[in-house]
Amino acid sequence: MSSSDIFIGETIGTAVLILLGGGVCAAVTLKSSKARNAGWLAITFGWGFAVLTGAYLAGGVSGAHLNPAVTVGLAIQGGTEWGDVPLYLGSQLLGAMIGALLVWAVYYGQFHAHLTDPEIIEAQPAEEAMVDQAAAPKAGPVLGIFSTGPEIRNGVQNVITEIIATVVLVLAILTQGLNNEGNGIGVLGALITALVVVGIGLSLGGPTGYAINPVRDLGPRIVHALLPLPNKGGSDWGYAWVPIVGPLVGGALAGGLYNLAFA
Amino acid sequence: MSSSDIFIGETIGTAVLILLGGGVCAAVTLKSSKARNAGWLAITFGWGFAVLTGAYLAGGVSGAHLNPAVTVGLAIQGGTEWGDVPLYLGSQLLGAMIGALLVWAVYYGQFHAHLTDPEIIEAQPAEEAMVDQAAAPKAGPVLGIFSTGPEIRNGVQNVITEIIATVVLVLAILTQGLNNEGNGIGVLGALITALVVVGIGLSLGGPTGYAINPVRDLGPRIVHALLPLPNKGGSDWGYAWVPIVGPLVGGALAGGLYNLAFA
Amino acid sequence: MSSSDIFIGETIGTAVLILLGGGVCAAVTLKSSKARNAGWLAITFGWGFAVLTGAYLAGGVSGAHLNPAVTVGLAIQGGTEWGDVPLYLGSQLLGAMIGALLVWAVYYGQFHAHLTDPEIIEAQPAEEAMVDQAAAPKAGPVLGIFSTGPEIRNGVQNVITEIIATVVLVLAILTQGLNNEGNGIGVLGALITALVVVGIGLSLGGPTGYAINPVRDLGPRIVHALLPLPNKGGSDWGYAWVPIVGPLVGGALAGGLYNLAFA
Amino acid sequence: MSSSDIFIGETIGTAVLILLGGGVCAAVTLKSSKARNAGWLAITFGWGFAVLTGAYLAGGVSGAHLNPAVTVGLAIQGGTEWGDVPLYLGSQLLGAMIGALLVWAVYYGQFHAHLTDPEIIEAQPAEEAMVDQAAAPKAGPVLGIFSTGPEIRNGVQNVITEIIATVVLVLAILTQGLNNEGNGIGVLGALITALVVVGIGLSLGGPTGYAINPVRDLGPRIVHALLPLPNKGGSDWGYAWVPIVGPLVGGALAGGLYNLAFA
Repeated sequence: MSSSDIFIGETIGTAVLILLGGGVCAAVTLKSSKARNAGWLAITFGWGFAVLTGAYLAGGVSGAHLNPAVTVGLAIQGGTEWGDVPLYLGSQLLGAMIGALLVWAVYYGQFHAHLTDPEIIEAQPAEEAMVDQAAAPKAGPVLGIFSTGPEIRNGVQNVITEIIATVVLVLAILTQGLNNEGNGIGVLGALITALVVVGIGLSLGGPTGYAINPVRDLGPRIVHALLPLPNKGGSDWGYAWVPIVGPLVGGALAGGLYNLAFA
Repeated sequence: MSSSDIFIGETIGTAVLILLGGGVCAAVTLKSSKARNAGWLAITFGWGFAVLTGAYLAGGVSGAHLNPAVTVGLAIQGGTEWGDVPLYLGSQLLGAMIGALLVWAVYYGQFHAHLTDPEIIEAQPAEEAMVDQAAAPKAGPVLGIFSTGPEIRNGVQNVITEIIATVVLVLAILTQGLNNEGNGIGVLGALITALVVVGIGLSLGGPTGYAINPVRDLGPRIVHALLPLPNKGGSDWGYAWVPIVGPLVGGALAGGLYNLAFA
Repeated sequence: MSSSDIFIGETIGTAVLILLGGGVCAAVTLKSSKARNAGWLAITFGWGFAVLTGAYLAGGVSGAHLNPAVTVGLAIQGGTEWGDVPLYLGSQLLGAMIGALLVWAVYYGQFHAHLTDPEIIEAQPAEEAMVDQAAAPKAGPVLGIFSTGPEIRNGVQNVITEIIATVVLVLAILTQGLNNEGNGIGVLGALITALVVVGIGLSLGGPTGYAINPVRDLGPRIVHALLPLPNKGGSDWGYAWVPIVGPLVGGALAGGLYNLAFA
Repeated sequence: MSSSDIFIGETIGTAVLILLGGGVCAAVTLKSSKARNAGWLAITFGWGFAVLTGAYLAGGVSGAHLNPAVTVGLAIQGGTEWGDVPLYLGSQLLGAMIGALLVWAVYYGQFHAHLTDPEIIEAQPAEEAMVDQAAAPKAGPVLGIFSTGPEIRNGVQNVITEIIATVVLVLAILTQGLNNEGNGIGVLGALITALVVVGIGLSLGGPTGYAINPVRDLGPRIVHALLPLPNKGGSDWGYAWVPIVGPLVGGALAGGLYNLAFA
């Protein structure tokens, strides 16, 4: 696989992943969106089909990792060369930032309507009071469209949740070669992986919102910090390490478990 | 591909697409429908399976574009001859109009019950007052079953939303040849494309209702203007250019991006 | 295909179709069911996966028609011999009756709890008053678990709705050979057909509840008439012709349209 | 298939099945979960994609039975050697217990918040009064995350419901070889089986919560009995025989029916 294939596939594929994934969060959150309050099932299927679209688009080009946890797991398994890892990760982060910008472009009017509505802005403190913690950093009213956040803030518990969820994801991707004798993510593999992501969201997303992908959280968080949105609030950098460390550890554990048990 | 194959496949396929797509909008909107208020997830899955059915039906005949944006994207990519484009587009528009007529036939009693219910007709102005705009043209109470409309009316923003959503759709279709070494939309391709459309609806449909297809909007809008429905209100022709221009530009951009990055 | 293959595949396959299809109607309707009021999306996906399971089970044995409209369409197309049609239809009707009996066995306690609850039984007339008709026959409070019924009772309109919906279904089945060069319903064909049925339900099910299959309605209606359920009410035989005639005409039209346009 | 393949595939696959399956029950039940009250559709799709993930992971290793009812059905059919059955069953039970422990790890904070909330704990007796029975054993407020329970407690009726539902599941698995000429559960087979499980849940899950798998119920019930959860209540051992006996009888009946009708 050439460097330019990796760059193009991972950048465009991750951009589409975050455009559709962040998009569904915008769709169910923002004022004047037809999908407002469409519910958890809409969010989890939306993210799943975001994975499907990104993976389908980039599958034949870069193998469609779209996620540093997948890249690390594949490198440990031997399916990806370690020398390619930095390019994969950089392209994924760039793509995630582009995707978050595109969400902003698609929902430009909705962001403005939402963030300048006095009722919505004033309601924020009350919503945050529901969080079971004494000293949560003030998270912005639309941060959830960009990045994940925990329902109960506890670094150790949150990182364990992300690790376990990511092990399931990456192990499912690593073992697919055992089923269909193919390399990388084929058409059917993209579909199965997408539905596995819907399943992880439905089943393991309750506590932390299932980042299971470092750039899915970091890229849009950077964009949130930079965008000139009115009344946007903080970017909750105190939590940012959890969805980076958890998925990376989970991806590495999955790679190790594969080599130990399945190879 | 012969001219008669293109005509038959695109006309019947697009008719089925709009019959099922318009059908789900009728199902969740109209009085005395068992599916009334079934929600956004029902709408997005309904449109997705409409694409699946139309594409599956016409796939082996005309390649199942069913959408001028797809035809234009494929022509730029080189998968479709430019000489065939007018026949594709004409057949698609004809099919879309037939589909809208069939929705009317299926929901004939429901249309009448809905449009002659005094409570529903009188509630319209209040609903429209929710739209964030000073001078929205008066849209009819069932126009949403035929054509798309924006939540926040702003031509530039709305057309950008449609462009981005269509780029995702057409790029996913153009790149599928990289994954499965086949031409046109095979059985699995029809399924993946359908789920991509569900994903686009869930994620990018909030602002404009995701036309992403010029004839999907124009054909039924013409039928709405012509049908003798009581109290049907206006057909909102002032907005009609957005779901034509946006998807065409998006399809062309996807074709160009494919040639630049993926070819 | 031998006679015993047809008998076994169609009887067992249709029994499973109706067990799961009637089952989801029982699940969302009956008192003391965990799925009560799960909504229209649950019903349509439940029926779709009922088709998937029945078709998957019987596909390799009898070709999995499971529906006289499909058998008639295939006979007109030439994919099924006319001499086999009576055996297909008889086996399908027998299977549908067995399936309805199994629904009763699975939900035995729920049927009793529901039909002996004074609040539920007394609420029936009020519900029926919502139907837009002067002289609707009194339908029993659990008849909807067995058979379909219209929201607005008008024989001509109802039969047109059933015809159009069935044409879509049967045409999708007939054209699948054009896509995958296989005969009968393969594994992927069973999945696509199931999702097409979800789509038809979401989009065209609003007026009549989409029988689109004569035995799916007649078999369980006979069982409803015979079962010793307390307070079960009438079996609405006055409507029974619609879901027989509509689907049969639709299946025949689809066969003719196939021969005219696609062959 | 080697003993270590069976052990690894069944233990890890069943652990993932129960992690995701129990996980969705935790997600919709527990306080401070983003998915709380997401509804029956979320539960049934969550369990279906749990099957998909477990089966996809273990398919190429152990054949992915993940369920004693499937193992027994396959042994009767001849697809699995009787000598391997004890290892399959033991690995499945071990995996189910590991999966339940992982659910506890993922939702650790939520379990504590839920079980120490006075309103939730005090509301329990009222909820139980809704059950139509005089002397139901006191079930704990989170037992439903681990094990199944009936809406109407009647051993004979409950076991019949579980038998019928399991026959559908196992027969669908046994007959798939007739469709795709493959052995074991391939990639597409895993997807179809997963959707069949969604269908069984939607359609037949109303009365008992569809265990359809002895270890899916027994393994987590043992873990519930052992875990040091505050205010956890009883483990309802009086019902534990139903989701063991019903699925085993159902699996055996499916194997016999296969040999009689399909072989």
